[in-house]
Amino acid sequence: MPQAVHFIPGHPLAGTEYSGPESGFASLFDGRWCILTPPPETDADAVAKLKRFWEACGSSVEIMTPEHHDLVLAIVSHVPHLIAYNIVGTASDLETVTEKEVVKFSASGFRDFTRIAASDPTMWRDVFLNNKDAVLEMLGRFNEDLAALQRAIRWGDGDALFALFTRTRAIRRAIIDAGQETRAPDFGRSHGAAAETKKTA
Amino acid sequence: MPQAVHFIPGHPLAGTEYSGPESGFASLFDGRWCILTPPPETDADAVAKLKRFWEACGSSVEIMTPEHHDLVLAIVSHVPHLIAYNIVGTASDLETVTEKEVVKFSASGFRDFTRIAASDPTMWRDVFLNNKDAVLEMLGRFNEDLAALQRAIRWGDGDALFALFTRTRAIRRAIIDAGQETRAPDFGRSHGAAAETKKTA
Repeated sequence: MPQAVHFIPGHPLAGTEYSGPESGFASLFDGRWCILTPPPETDADAVAKLKRFWEACGSSVEIMTPEHHDLVLAIVSHVPHLIAYNIVGTASDLETVTEKEVVKFSASGFRDFTRIAASDPTMWRDVFLNNKDAVLEMLGRFNEDLAALQRAIRWGDGDALFALFTRTRAIRRAIIDAGQETRAPDFGRSHGAAAETKKTA
Repeated sequence: MPQAVHFIPGHPLAGTEYSGPESGFASLFDGRWCILTPPPETDADAVAKLKRFWEACGSSVEIMTPEHHDLVLAIVSHVPHLIAYNIVGTASDLETVTEKEVVKFSASGFRDFTRIAASDPTMWRDVFLNNKDAVLEMLGRFNEDLAALQRAIRWGDGDALFALFTRTRAIRRAIIDAGQETRAPDFGRSHGAAAETKKTA
């Protein structure tokens, strides 16, 4: 790297399930976070300049180590994507329930998962190959917790289910209060619009 | 049951993460499905009448056996809810990543899961206790598929990941084409509105 060039790894946490420049929009970074992971010896002025750049785009900026970044992203992004891809795969492979039925009745929960399972396959393949250790660590915890839930269902432990289901509600409220999610029911999905699509299809 | 009374089990597949009569809206059933599971000896006229009732509300009606209903709902609704509850629980229990970080960076995938993990705890406890067999069956398949994905990540099998991630995209397109989902990026979430919440909070 030439001496006057500063390399500062980082990326915004923004975007939709669509890819490419034509999928951008003016408010894409408004109120979103951008994570920078400068190596310890990085020029402080260069980091401050890059921070101002992202803030000018509407983002808030967080600085952390690459190792911590990998753990954070594994739980807030990579494992959620992995289990979304997985449930969509499982549902489409069944013999007892047809794919047509999965599609028809998807509004009861399943379709939420299909959005992130429609993300760019090349990028997501590379994410899992490159953040292997953190993903496997977080996936191990997910599996451990899921085994406990499975056991609670098998043995009819309603109290354990109720306790978890109550606790998770509070997390969503915190995300809404932090300005990272809309308060509108059903993500503010246009119910009329979905029906429209059907009529004009 | 008095002889002039016909009992026909069934329910609509509609609603949001909010509960109670005040969470209803005029287009709630538009383009959605309602499933009826009449026992074999049920009066055909009574079933036809109930079908017309739901159609008048804007729903399409599907008739199936209770056993098939339980399998269909396990995969399109119950297991998706279970894994959403589970990932939200796992994320909030970590020591290496704080709950504050999970909330801040949730827009990268995690927050989608918090919507259905904010559903009514009493209703969902009862769903899992009463549809135990079908849920455990579908959960077994989900776990089997997830173990295969986990192995693909550990051994760096990029082709297996890419193949699944490409296949799942097609399912979302089918759901959109069937009028059961909006085509808008990010469920049509108002990006401005999320930022608004932050500014006014």
